Formats: sequence, C-alpha cells, structure tokens
Amino acid sequence: MKRRDFITKASLGGIATASALSTPALAQERIEIAMVSTWPRDFPGLGTGAQRFAQSVTDASDGRMQVTYYAAGERVGAFDSFDEVASGNAQMYHAADYYWKGKHPGWAYFATVPFGLTFTEMDSWMKWMGGQELHDELAEPFGIKCLPCGNTGVQWGGWFNKEINSVDDLKGLKMRIPGLGGDVMAKLGASPVSLPGGQIYENLVSGAIDATEWAGPWNDEAMKFYEAARYYYYPGMHEPATQFSLGMNASFWHGLRESDKLLLKHLAASENANMMAEYNAKNGEALVRLQQDQGVEIREFNDELYNAFGRSATEVFAEVTAHSELAERIHKSFLNARKTVGDFLVLNDVAYINKRNKVLGKQ
Amino acid sequence: MKRRDFITKASLGGIATASALSTPALAQERIEIAMVSTWPRDFPGLGTGAQRFAQSVTDASDGRMQVTYYAAGERVGAFDSFDEVASGNAQMYHAADYYWKGKHPGWAYFATVPFGLTFTEMDSWMKWMGGQELHDELAEPFGIKCLPCGNTGVQWGGWFNKEINSVDDLKGLKMRIPGLGGDVMAKLGASPVSLPGGQIYENLVSGAIDATEWAGPWNDEAMKFYEAARYYYYPGMHEPATQFSLGMNASFWHGLRESDKLLLKHLAASENANMMAEYNAKNGEALVRLQQDQGVEIREFNDELYNAFGRSATEVFAEVTAHSELAERIHKSFLNARKTVGDFLVLNDVAYINKRNKVLGKQ
Repeated sequence: MKRRDFITKASLGGIATASALSTPALAQERIEIAMVSTWPRDFPGLGTGAQRFAQSVTDASDGRMQVTYYAAGERVGAFDSFDEVASGNAQMYHAADYYWKGKHPGWAYFATVPFGLTFTEMDSWMKWMGGQELHDELAEPFGIKCLPCGNTGVQWGGWFNKEINSVDDLKGLKMRIPGLGGDVMAKLGASPVSLPGGQIYENLVSGAIDATEWAGPWNDEAMKFYEAARYYYYPGMHEPATQFSLGMNASFWHGLRESDKLLLKHLAASENANMMAEYNAKNGEALVRLQQDQGVEIREFNDELYNAFGRSATEVFAEVTAHSELAERIHKSFLNARKTVGDFLVLNDVAYINKRNKVLGKQ
Repeated sequence: MKRRDFITKASLGGIATASALSTPALAQERIEIAMVSTWPRDFPGLGTGAQRFAQSVTDASDGRMQVTYYAAGERVGAFDSFDEVASGNAQMYHAADYYWKGKHPGWAYFATVPFGLTFTEMDSWMKWMGGQELHDELAEPFGIKCLPCGNTGVQWGGWFNKEINSVDDLKGLKMRIPGLGGDVMAKLGASPVSLPGGQIYENLVSGAIDATEWAGPWNDEAMKFYEAARYYYYPGMHEPATQFSLGMNASFWHGLRESDKLLLKHLAASENANMMAEYNAKNGEALVRLQQDQGVEIREFNDELYNAFGRSATEVFAEVTAHSELAERIHKSFLNARKTVGDFLVLNDVAYINKRNKVLGKQ
C-alpha cells in the first residue's frame, strides 16, 4: 500500500469509527448499583476508602453508574456481604476476602496470609504474576468477580494487656485475629476469634477477649484500644499487607459493556493505591500520638516468637494446600511472587532505605 | 422530617438527577488528544506504560476521548515535549519532570531527587501530604497540569567499566545521569550529561560516555549496556523512585468536564501503580539473567561513596532552596514526607521483610 493510500484510508477509518461510536453513547442507560461492606460507616481508611471508591464510580461515569453504599449492618451484617452479592441481591461488596476462608482457604491469599506479601509484592503478584487470574478462577464458581480495591500495608502485631516474651505467654489468650493468622495463633495455644471491626472494642473492654489486632497505628488509635491494652507489638506476621476486594456479582460484571468494565477496573486500582498511600501518610504521626498522648508502649516481637510463628505457619500452609488442587496452585504462585519480588526488594527498597538512613544519621 | 417524607423526596430527587444527567450525556463530543513522550516506542516499562495509559483513555471513555500517542522523535524530540504541550500544540506529555529542572529546579522533586523518596513515600507525599498541590503550583505558570502516571522504583546506581571504590574513581568520569543526581556527581568531579534513552547505548559503546545509569535490571537489560560496561552498582542514591508525569496543557485540562478530569486522574493513578508493579515483577528475574547469561558483576556502593554522595547532595539542595521561595517550600514538604513516612517504614515494611527473611533462612 502506498503511503498516500494508507493516510486516506486511515482518515476515512477514523471518521467511520467516530460515527459508529456515537450511537452506543446515545443508548447508554443508567446502572443502579448497591454496594455492601464489612466496615463501620466513615471508619478511617478502609471505610472511607470504600465510600470514596463508590462515589468515584458515580462521579467518573458522570452519574451513569449510580452506587448506593451500605456500611456494615445498614443492609446486611458485615459477614453476610459475600452472600448478598453472590445471590445478586447487591452488585458489589468491599471486604477483606479472608473473611470467606471457611468457603475455601484460597480466599485468604487475596487478602493476606501469615509471612505473606507486602503491598509492593502483592501488587506485582496480582497484576503481573498470575494473582488476578487465580483470584478469578477461585471466585467464578461462587458467582463473584473481584478486583483489588485498597490495602492497609503491613499490619501491626496487636494489642496485649501484658508483655508477650515467649510462646507460653500466648497460651490461653483469647485474641481477635481473623484469617490464616488466627490459625497460626491457634497452633501456639491461643484462642483466635474473628469479629467485625464494629464489635472489637466492646469485647476488649469487657474482657471477653484478652487481645486484638486490627490494622496499624492510625486505625487502631481511632478504635481506642489503648484504653484496654497497653502493649502494642510490631511487626505483625499475620497480615503483612491486607488487600481489600471489590467483589462484584459475576452476572452483573459480565453484563457490563467493555468500557464500563475498564472504568471499574481502573477506579478500583486507583483506590487500591490511594488507600495504601493514606495509611502510610497517617500511620507515622498516629504512632507518635499513641506513645506521647496515650502512654502506649511499643514492643517488637522477639526472634523466639517469630520462629514459633514461622513453624506454625508452615503447618497451617500444609493444611491449606492439602485442601484442593486449586489451593495448592494458589500457594505455589504466592510463593513464587514472595521469592521473586521479595528477594529483589532486599537489594532495592530495603538496601536503599538502610543506606539512606545511615547517611541521614538515623541508624 | 418524617421518614416517609424523606424517602419520597429522596426518590424524587433521584429521578430528577437522572433526568438532568442524561442531557449532557447526549451532548458529549469527541475529544482528540495528541500525546508526546520522552521514550522510545515500545520501550519496556516506561514506554509501554505510557502507551498503555494512552490506550486506556480511549478505551475507558468508550472512544469519546481519542488519544494519539507519539514516541520520542515521532512528532518532536524527547526534550521538546514540555514546550509542545505548554504551547498547546499537543495536549499531553509523558515524561520524567526532572528533564525540566533548567526551567525551575522544583520540577526535579516530582520525578525524583538524590536521597529522595521511595515509591511508597512518594505516593503518600503526592496524594496525602501536599505533593500534588505543590506540583500544581509549580506547573500552573508554565501552562501545565501534571498527574503522577508511572514509576520505576528505586533505580540502580549505574553501569561502569571499572570498579568504583572511592570518590577518586569518579573524577573525570563522563556519565549519563540526569536531574539533581547529575549535579551530585558533578560536585564529586564527574561530568554528568543528560541524554534521552534512545541515545545512551550508542554513546556508551562509542566511548563518548564512560558510564550511565538508566533504570534497573529489567530496563537496563533491554538497553544491552552489559556489552560496554561490566560493573552494575546498587543501590542508586540518585533516583530512589522515578515518578513519571502525565503533563497536560492547562487550558485543555481546565476546559474538561469534571467527570473527564476524574477519569483522567484515576486512569493515570491506575497506570502509576501498574507500572511500578510491572518493574517490581520483572526486575528480579532480569537481574538473575544479567548475572548468569551476561556475566555482569553486581557491586554495592560502599559507605565512603554513600557518605560523599550525601555531602554533595546537601550542597545541591542548598543551591536549589536558594533559587526561590517555592523551591524552598517544595524542599521542606519533601523533607517532611521523607521523615514521616520513611521513619514509619523502618518499623513497618523494612522491619517485617527483615524478620520474615530471617525466619525463611534468607539472612
């Protein structure tokens, strides 16, 4: 084809495309979406982030997609969110998918697992190393389609009303800790319970539980756990970067036009990063306030505890991978991401931060 | 107001809104956008990411916004991208904003500066700690509006044809290194040059330059720098996480309807995280290939060099902040983000990765 021919045809093609595209635009109909969540209304970070995402769908679609957001308990209870969406009663949920580990242990991997992925590692796994594809394979039989939509980053180890210096100190401890992290604690003699965020404080203050983890300094300060527990431990092995899912009814998702699928995908990805950035921006200052204003005592888990956590996690993973062929494949893919990205980060972000802080006189 | 009244009014309100919204939807016109960039066509990561963003605007808007993408040299030269957009000849550029430090040193901060922010810290600064607002204040008088749209993560220190063990080894070295990192090297006796990506390899092979940095293992492997330099140093102090900007003509931006501004904002934010995830997914395996297949030797900058880099960076920053009141405010805001987020990360991501790797027997 001669260059002149190509230009002419390309121009004509362009005009034809524009004309063809205007027709569906005229036919666009308003889409009503009900979104349930596992978070208290207006709870900083995970709650406000979920609400911000819901609003962004309405706003960026210029009102064509109208999302009505329901916090935990406003339409269904927190842990009923999954069934509400799978059944088609609602179109979307915002939740941490480890809440559904009873349905299949694979769900935990797409929130967080013990000794799991940091946000940086998780984002690479989901987007470039097969994570999203495995999440889809897991979710499809349940009638759900998920997209990452928020993250807390590395969570802190939890609030305790006594120092935790050895495995013996964990025995008999009633602790709110969900997901596979709870299973790790159970193997060390603790009694893990899973409570939605809105019910933790009352249980801790009443003594119904002895300890709890929730997220990190910024969120935990809002929860006022310091009123009932004095020792705050880091780093948590149980939730190294808890990812939240936008879970959608699969029929709703498959019925969307391609451009709307893309819009939702990018809006969710934007909130995924935005929420992470907010946690990292606000955790540091909250930690200072907790120490200075509330007298909270910061403690680091010692190596004996971390090694015990590691041994228990190995047992938990053995049970998970024995569950099914899919659980085993998810685990192997997760291990590959942890090794490939994690080993590189040691030479990259970790090496740089260490070198920089040395020059800045910080270590 | 009684509950029944509220429901009735809310429902009527909803209908009224839907009706009002449908009118502008019908009136939507197609928007043609020319996007220039500083990257070679199809260059992995920064180039393919910019192209992916351009395509996402077309696709997620269902063709209403049509972006035509021009790689470096296809419409204007790489470093003419800024003027092309500021003048209104094109609507968008994709570039690292430190290329414009000659116009104002503040531009460097919104790409990366020596001893600067990791991606995690940068994302918090831009979104939650005043970074975007300062970027806007800097860009507005130039007729530009910028949004973050990609990141390489911590860059590697560069390719050298001899070992670099002391400051003396840097003297007289002709090195491709842009931004304020180049200014740091100049203070140590090197001769920094800024070359667009498409011109580095030929200059390195011909001996016109002795050394170069570019990005990290995945990108540098594609550049085949190992053919001309054997020693590959980490971690780079010069570009701890190079952010790329979607730079838009300010009149174009201000003329957009709110929903289109939001769409572009979220699409750029999505690509910002997506590109970072791709680099982290692919850098680790590329590093192994560089060592095993190409015989590249990995070296860590020693403390003497890092301390010298640190002293030079202090001098460079003194010059930058003396430039103007705005440059000083940008620098102070940057320092606050580095301290607030950086100090927290040491207790969080860094502490967790170290503890995890110890349990996994990796250190």
